[in-house]
Amino acid sequence: MRIEANSNLLFIGDSITDCGRARPVGEANPWNWGEIGNGYVRDVAATIGAAYPERGIRIRNVGSSGNTVRDLAARWKSDVTDLAPDWLSVMIGINDVWRQFDSPLAPERAVPLAEYSETLWSLCHRTRPKLKGLVLITPYVVDANLHDPMRQRMDEYGAAVKEIAEEFEAVFVDSQAAFDLLLEHTHPASIAWDRIHPGPVGHMTLARAFLRSVGAL
Amino acid sequence: MRIEANSNLLFIGDSITDCGRARPVGEANPWNWGEIGNGYVRDVAATIGAAYPERGIRIRNVGSSGNTVRDLAARWKSDVTDLAPDWLSVMIGINDVWRQFDSPLAPERAVPLAEYSETLWSLCHRTRPKLKGLVLITPYVVDANLHDPMRQRMDEYGAAVKEIAEEFEAVFVDSQAAFDLLLEHTHPASIAWDRIHPGPVGHMTLARAFLRSVGAL
Amino acid sequence: MRIEANSNLLFIGDSITDCGRARPVGEANPWNWGEIGNGYVRDVAATIGAAYPERGIRIRNVGSSGNTVRDLAARWKSDVTDLAPDWLSVMIGINDVWRQFDSPLAPERAVPLAEYSETLWSLCHRTRPKLKGLVLITPYVVDANLHDPMRQRMDEYGAAVKEIAEEFEAVFVDSQAAFDLLLEHTHPASIAWDRIHPGPVGHMTLARAFLRSVGAL
Amino acid sequence: MRIEANSNLLFIGDSITDCGRARPVGEANPWNWGEIGNGYVRDVAATIGAAYPERGIRIRNVGSSGNTVRDLAARWKSDVTDLAPDWLSVMIGINDVWRQFDSPLAPERAVPLAEYSETLWSLCHRTRPKLKGLVLITPYVVDANLHDPMRQRMDEYGAAVKEIAEEFEAVFVDSQAAFDLLLEHTHPASIAWDRIHPGPVGHMTLARAFLRSVGAL
Amino acid sequence: MRIEANSNLLFIGDSITDCGRARPVGEANPWNWGEIGNGYVRDVAATIGAAYPERGIRIRNVGSSGNTVRDLAARWKSDVTDLAPDWLSVMIGINDVWRQFDSPLAPERAVPLAEYSETLWSLCHRTRPKLKGLVLITPYVVDANLHDPMRQRMDEYGAAVKEIAEEFEAVFVDSQAAFDLLLEHTHPASIAWDRIHPGPVGHMTLARAFLRSVGAL
Amino acid sequence: MRIEANSNLLFIGDSITDCGRARPVGEANPWNWGEIGNGYVRDVAATIGAAYPERGIRIRNVGSSGNTVRDLAARWKSDVTDLAPDWLSVMIGINDVWRQFDSPLAPERAVPLAEYSETLWSLCHRTRPKLKGLVLITPYVVDANLHDPMRQRMDEYGAAVKEIAEEFEAVFVDSQAAFDLLLEHTHPASIAWDRIHPGPVGHMTLARAFLRSVGAL
Amino acid sequence: MRIEANSNLLFIGDSITDCGRARPVGEANPWNWGEIGNGYVRDVAATIGAAYPERGIRIRNVGSSGNTVRDLAARWKSDVTDLAPDWLSVMIGINDVWRQFDSPLAPERAVPLAEYSETLWSLCHRTRPKLKGLVLITPYVVDANLHDPMRQRMDEYGAAVKEIAEEFEAVFVDSQAAFDLLLEHTHPASIAWDRIHPGPVGHMTLARAFLRSVGAL
Amino acid sequence: MRIEANSNLLFIGDSITDCGRARPVGEANPWNWGEIGNGYVRDVAATIGAAYPERGIRIRNVGSSGNTVRDLAARWKSDVTDLAPDWLSVMIGINDVWRQFDSPLAPERAVPLAEYSETLWSLCHRTRPKLKGLVLITPYVVDANLHDPMRQRMDEYGAAVKEIAEEFEAVFVDSQAAFDLLLEHTHPASIAWDRIHPGPVGHMTLARAFLRSVGAL
Repeated sequence: MRIEANSNLLFIGDSITDCGRARPVGEANPWNWGEIGNGYVRDVAATIGAAYPERGIRIRNVGSSGNTVRDLAARWKSDVTDLAPDWLSVMIGINDVWRQFDSPLAPERAVPLAEYSETLWSLCHRTRPKLKGLVLITPYVVDANLHDPMRQRMDEYGAAVKEIAEEFEAVFVDSQAAFDLLLEHTHPASIAWDRIHPGPVGHMTLARAFLRSVGAL
Repeated sequence: MRIEANSNLLFIGDSITDCGRARPVGEANPWNWGEIGNGYVRDVAATIGAAYPERGIRIRNVGSSGNTVRDLAARWKSDVTDLAPDWLSVMIGINDVWRQFDSPLAPERAVPLAEYSETLWSLCHRTRPKLKGLVLITPYVVDANLHDPMRQRMDEYGAAVKEIAEEFEAVFVDSQAAFDLLLEHTHPASIAWDRIHPGPVGHMTLARAFLRSVGAL
Repeated sequence: MRIEANSNLLFIGDSITDCGRARPVGEANPWNWGEIGNGYVRDVAATIGAAYPERGIRIRNVGSSGNTVRDLAARWKSDVTDLAPDWLSVMIGINDVWRQFDSPLAPERAVPLAEYSETLWSLCHRTRPKLKGLVLITPYVVDANLHDPMRQRMDEYGAAVKEIAEEFEAVFVDSQAAFDLLLEHTHPASIAWDRIHPGPVGHMTLARAFLRSVGAL
Repeated sequence: MRIEANSNLLFIGDSITDCGRARPVGEANPWNWGEIGNGYVRDVAATIGAAYPERGIRIRNVGSSGNTVRDLAARWKSDVTDLAPDWLSVMIGINDVWRQFDSPLAPERAVPLAEYSETLWSLCHRTRPKLKGLVLITPYVVDANLHDPMRQRMDEYGAAVKEIAEEFEAVFVDSQAAFDLLLEHTHPASIAWDRIHPGPVGHMTLARAFLRSVGAL
Repeated sequence: MRIEANSNLLFIGDSITDCGRARPVGEANPWNWGEIGNGYVRDVAATIGAAYPERGIRIRNVGSSGNTVRDLAARWKSDVTDLAPDWLSVMIGINDVWRQFDSPLAPERAVPLAEYSETLWSLCHRTRPKLKGLVLITPYVVDANLHDPMRQRMDEYGAAVKEIAEEFEAVFVDSQAAFDLLLEHTHPASIAWDRIHPGPVGHMTLARAFLRSVGAL
Repeated sequence: MRIEANSNLLFIGDSITDCGRARPVGEANPWNWGEIGNGYVRDVAATIGAAYPERGIRIRNVGSSGNTVRDLAARWKSDVTDLAPDWLSVMIGINDVWRQFDSPLAPERAVPLAEYSETLWSLCHRTRPKLKGLVLITPYVVDANLHDPMRQRMDEYGAAVKEIAEEFEAVFVDSQAAFDLLLEHTHPASIAWDRIHPGPVGHMTLARAFLRSVGAL
Repeated sequence: MRIEANSNLLFIGDSITDCGRARPVGEANPWNWGEIGNGYVRDVAATIGAAYPERGIRIRNVGSSGNTVRDLAARWKSDVTDLAPDWLSVMIGINDVWRQFDSPLAPERAVPLAEYSETLWSLCHRTRPKLKGLVLITPYVVDANLHDPMRQRMDEYGAAVKEIAEEFEAVFVDSQAAFDLLLEHTHPASIAWDRIHPGPVGHMTLARAFLRSVGAL
Repeated sequence: MRIEANSNLLFIGDSITDCGRARPVGEANPWNWGEIGNGYVRDVAATIGAAYPERGIRIRNVGSSGNTVRDLAARWKSDVTDLAPDWLSVMIGINDVWRQFDSPLAPERAVPLAEYSETLWSLCHRTRPKLKGLVLITPYVVDANLHDPMRQRMDEYGAAVKEIAEEFEAVFVDSQAAFDLLLEHTHPASIAWDRIHPGPVGHMTLARAFLRSVGAL
């Protein structure tokens, strides 16, 4: 298990990370457990708390629904730098791609690949030196059809994440690969009604991919 | 992993099991993931779905807040027998004991140990033959003080569960022991505001105890 | 335009037909225009009212969200026979198929092809003699990938509808073909967030397919 | 069909245009189809999307309930100029007239004919050069009684719209004439409860008049 | 003033009488003044209470929105006979006529003139002997255009009320005439947004017509 | 009837005047009749509208619940001067007195007699020259017991109003006298649950006192 | 202190007793302290619990807002007899009298003195033998004016309670006398806005009168 | 009874003091009795009002849920100094300690003992000279287990309060001792579900300890 005792782990991302977390910062507490949000961050926090109680790892969530990497950049100071995390996990890119396909007439809502890569690179560059550990998670779409243009585009964004992870010696989590394993046994419709927002099985799949990548599973 | 492919696993219990599950039967589905409830049953279902997707195990929840074993007996036919589970998990007894201490002036709300044991025995006796597997989980209180009278009483109920589990060759889950491990590192106040209803860490602790007992962790 | 003056046209189906129509019967009226529902039935009713005001055609909606053909059979007397339509439009089958893929562990929620065909045939057989006109609309999925198993299954159900339409001299509407035309120019994600429930463009596509089939466009 | 591929078409007006559209700008999108509003703009957008999917025409709605031409002038920069439409459709004047009759004691709420004409002229003058196409729609009242003073006044405002449309080579839509055709077959009470706000038939009547005027029907 | 001290006066009718009165019987009381409803019945009750406090006249309201004379007949026993009024005021017929014009395709919602007259006659015949006084109020439409077909039809129903009033020696209140006086000075749009449901001025107009007819103004 | 045609009449006061009127200014209008509030102002407006439709008198309400004369002074510019009334009606003082008796320990909430008189005098002095007519209404308590200290104090405030009315040639309305007449026939409990806030009979009593004072009854 | 250890004390009455207690039976419990209601019963229960924790006295509340003694008789079996109290406290009569004054035109809502006395006598007669102790509390009105007719009538009802208390050897609590002491120092308006429903000071006054009568203060 | 007539007594603290009091200042008043909050402050105010009506003591509540002594310092000027109390009661420290145990990973939420003592001392030092009387109440936990670390820590904070009380000649209230007496007869679970927030019995216990300390019981 690579996350050190007494570390402070922060998650940032889009609706998959958000899942109803409290504002300005989501963190489970005894008066309102739900403040951590109801998705994979909760599953990670609950598992680490249950399996490594002696480590005292603090976990916080600043995911925000609908965010692209452009939105992350805009709030990076208040939502990442100011919180001074030891470990940071970033999962972004779904909306950057999805808007290209669900809102083709509103191009200002999407983020093209070049801007995506550069922005993510720049955020990592700015913050990596202050971190004990960085985790980068690819975006995904719950669709095993490799001919689908949105799946193809998402894979390109995932490849960009991989490259950046390597450059910054970040822990790399391939969420698309994790979902592809599920899809060998079941249809996308049973995992996520809109092929993006999963239920408990999908979130636990994400959590397990994260936990495995840091040696906690 | 002892639960067979294509099995149908049913959870019954009190508010710890319920956690807002849908009526009449709680089961996660793509239109409303929350119908399984938001507690350890979700964590178990999500983990089995994520780790054993090829098994196709169906998981349903009929926990009901406030229930004692007396309430379970009253709804056993519709909520257990009629659903024809292959595997059944029963976690009951917290309210049977708690009411003795939080409502001492209203004795009709609690269930004494003899009635508790006999009723639970009778339900197991009635249903065990139709099951591939039975899991019995002890009640618990999030209090490490072995001199507390409520903790002492809870332990007596837990001992009764253990005895019944042995008689019926059930999988036995000692939830109190699982919480006691957590309490070696943290105060009860950080696990459960009322020493009963835990947050995500406590529910994951229960889920992990369950999963370990059936060989899924 | 084949629907005669002073005719009474009834729509039955699932959520695509329902779209929030009033209970027990949906019909636009000056105190609450929305009682007809907010989907293709509204578009059909509005177009016929605007283009053929002299015909005085009454349009009512008894679609119900989540329905399969099994549900239609259960409420056929009160919701079709008792309303004595001159023309009847039936669009059913999406849930019959979808449940096979989004709820594979709950097989009782889906309707297999044989039962689907027989039930739909039987409903038509019972009611066709009392009608001036019958319209049968295929189910669809907003997915152009002909290799997707849910798309393949949906096409089989659509083929069954076509066969029954021919036997009963019904007007046949191929909704899947209408959506496939749209998908030549845009990704499914822009038509329907869950590949089933479309927005205004998708509903107008259905309405236009219906109107064209009865000579009203 | 006169609206070119990849055009950006904007609707502005009063409650007939608004119909609950989102703020600050109404545009159908897959997470909330209703953001375009629930009136004739939706019918136009849905028809263009369904009949001309290959053109990729973007349609937005900035109608606001209760507006007069005075209100349009006040928000013209942010709501029209800044959105840089290729095509603009303006339907205004109902409240300018209606307030003269329903609120005779609050004259500041109405807009007299001279101010109405001058303001509308000025807005067209300011914006026409930047547009590929301009559509001007008359105000209307759902009342076929040509002796009614409000109908007579509304016709004067409609005549002013016609004159301005000619001067600016705008597409002219005579909504009053469209409703008058409906009223040959039915009483105003069945079209609009307050003789202004129509149901689906009335909105489709407006949409069809618009679509016919741009060659899309 | 013709209503005797200690009399019990009951109002029945449609939405104009109802105006949100309490169920099952509307009567102002110190814990909820609004239980009498917020229309002309309130104005009558308030005026009689303020001007004739020494008479102790009890006033109750059983108007029901949407009612036709057919609905009145159906609830006459519980809502009139069982309440044993000394004086009874009946105002019905608006919906009987209105539905013919706003819902021409749903003829079952309207009541034709012959049925209207016979039913009203029959109710008066049944109850007049038990009453000290009966008041019959005509239906109305807030439209001074005598050529409008709905106005013409409403006048025929009003004439029927007049005839029945004469036969049963009832106090006759011509509400249409009262509104026609208002319309000499103002447009219908300022009296009632839908030409039926008036604001405070219209309700006070009705109340004054009632009060004048019983000698209380 | 002393209020001239085309006059603009404004009511200011406390909760008795307010009665739920709209903000910032209450005025009945066809989209929301209740904006005038639901008390004596409505009764006055409705009666003037019904009895003098040819005069076109505009009536507005700026009463505010809980106000004392101190609050009136604080908002006099925006709520009176800026609205430029022809006629102004002021009814204030109930809270100035009531707080002395219901909140004896919070003296800052009440207004002593000297401050009350001076403030009211000053407001009249400032505004009277711009008015065609001024109406001053006394405060009241629905209690006929002349020995009650709150009644005695209220009468002193009423006497101050009378004096000011004489000095400024205002129409004087003695609301206490109007209620005393009612109390000859009924107990205070049937007029106002808290001896201050009356029901419809009490509000009509106030309205009739007002109307009589301006010659409109 | 006269109430024995392990006794079961029941309160019945009207809104003064009810104060929002839970249905069917109000009793404070750790999941919802408010179930006992928020009035004098809470103050009594809290004081006994705090001052005599060793006695284990159970306190329940079945007061119901608006009740007269006639309503008590109707629910006596389920709400008193079936709960088998050791001690019973009855406070009734306010509504029996109040309705005579606030609803003089609806005499069926009040209970005349003879019926009041007989009914209360009969209830005591039926239940006294089964009780260890009975407490009878007079009705009251927060009005020190002995000339007020409602006060005079209330005193007559209070005298009837006293007589019955003597006959049945009940503990007698004169609530009117307790309020009269308060009124020597403050105006009724500061005790109860409607002269009936008091705030915390009034409820504590009732509680102290009760506690003193059973020797607990 | 040490609190002088016409004194102004202010309570400040955390949720135990707050209990839903109104903002900005909580004070019972006849329009909303609940504005004082629903806890021990209400019990104190009600008892003083009922037992010492002639003293006219004004009682206000500025407790705020979740507050530590750090929060008190931040709002001391507006919430204490500006209100100019004669007597001040401070009960603080529960959250200062509790956060150390329920949120061990978020140390910024708790207040260590040194900071607690210094801050409380400083507030007393600043304000004591302006007061007639100061009451300091210890924090508590409803747990009789003297070995529990949170109980031990709470006792240390209570000891600090005692020391400061002595230095400033404040009335000292040992709330922990009061609860310990209750716990001799009942389990913590019946007093407070989370061992902190008590029901009516616990609040009355606090109120009685306060009242006894000032000679009012």
